[in-house]
Amino acid sequence: MIVLHHLEKSRSFRIVWLLEELKLNYGLDYRLHIHKRDAETFLAPGELKELHPMGKAPILSDDSLPEGNQVLAESALIIEYLLKTYDVRHLFYPTEGQAWRDYTFWLHFAEGSLMPPAVMYLILSKAAEKTPFFARFVARKIRDTVAKVILSGNIRSALDLLESSLVGREYLAGAFGGADIQMYFAVAAVQQRMGLENRPNIAAWLARCEERAGFVHAVEASGPVFG
Amino acid sequence: MIVLHHLEKSRSFRIVWLLEELKLNYGLDYRLHIHKRDAETFLAPGELKELHPMGKAPILSDDSLPEGNQVLAESALIIEYLLKTYDVRHLFYPTEGQAWRDYTFWLHFAEGSLMPPAVMYLILSKAAEKTPFFARFVARKIRDTVAKVILSGNIRSALDLLESSLVGREYLAGAFGGADIQMYFAVAAVQQRMGLENRPNIAAWLARCEERAGFVHAVEASGPVFG
Repeated sequence: MIVLHHLEKSRSFRIVWLLEELKLNYGLDYRLHIHKRDAETFLAPGELKELHPMGKAPILSDDSLPEGNQVLAESALIIEYLLKTYDVRHLFYPTEGQAWRDYTFWLHFAEGSLMPPAVMYLILSKAAEKTPFFARFVARKIRDTVAKVILSGNIRSALDLLESSLVGREYLAGAFGGADIQMYFAVAAVQQRMGLENRPNIAAWLARCEERAGFVHAVEASGPVFG
Repeated sequence: MIVLHHLEKSRSFRIVWLLEELKLNYGLDYRLHIHKRDAETFLAPGELKELHPMGKAPILSDDSLPEGNQVLAESALIIEYLLKTYDVRHLFYPTEGQAWRDYTFWLHFAEGSLMPPAVMYLILSKAAEKTPFFARFVARKIRDTVAKVILSGNIRSALDLLESSLVGREYLAGAFGGADIQMYFAVAAVQQRMGLENRPNIAAWLARCEERAGFVHAVEASGPVFG
């Protein structure tokens, strides 16, 4: 039995979505365990630490794995594991050539290049909000200075690259797959917090993702992607 | 011909190191192009933008790839590409079982879980330094508050996990490989900026990495790993 520990409104939505795609195509069954965020801090609850020492969702357990090694963490590993193990017709991941290079690039790019500045912006914004009144002006200035550098230097470059990579293609590696799932969450998070400006290919790709039956089922099962 | 664009004292050291390991084991040849950081901002020079739209090292080109698709970016993709293409005896990457899961976990973990808080700490420290005198106290307080949360919540958990994972093993996936290279830079960066506290398994693993001939050759070819 596969059990997914999902944190509401978090990046572990990716794994719910992938599991729903696998259920639709292979009838793969899984159990979903939804964890609530702390109402005050919005952080993950302490109980996740008991499941995996990093204490972050997603956490997946699969009792078909050897005892003592049944618990997996880290989004991209879980995606790679589920596809390697259960996507036996390779519907969602190419294994050779340019499609493999595109797939692998975006799989790493999401957490390696796009999420870090997006998360940093969010944390600085929260820090600025929580700073005592007399210091809030300075805190906002720091956030805005850092944000300006990060936005122009990294996030904008990333969105431009994505926008041009989507010219003439429906999904990141040609056919829909794990890289789209991994990137979707990062891009949608940026859209939520900062907007995408005018990038029609990205907007169309996000919409294509959201129309998929697997995506719709995942939202039904786990709630909205963002808070 | 393989050409690596390396930014001095940066994460692209990883690819120099991997190429030296491949040179030692397969006689693989490559050309190293070292780019200097901007003396004032310490950022990557603008010329990298002409090679790849993200403008960040490492950038690797390989003219054995199809024209128009010869340039690769993103550390982990480059590692995966070089191993898949040139490590034909699978010396440095396992393809099945628990070794594959360990390998893939750490490959993603380095940029997905360990580098983001480490880079954030560095950027906030620099922001605090550059803040005008009257606001510096507040800037440092923000850095320290964020750093405290990040350090206890993320970096410390990551180091604890690594420390316990290294019990009874020499390298992250058993034998030395791409995951060690990917993780080494992240862990050594944390060591440089914040220290590792008392974690003997990590210290021994770092030392084992640094003693490898490939590592030594990489430092000779590209200069010190940190500034």
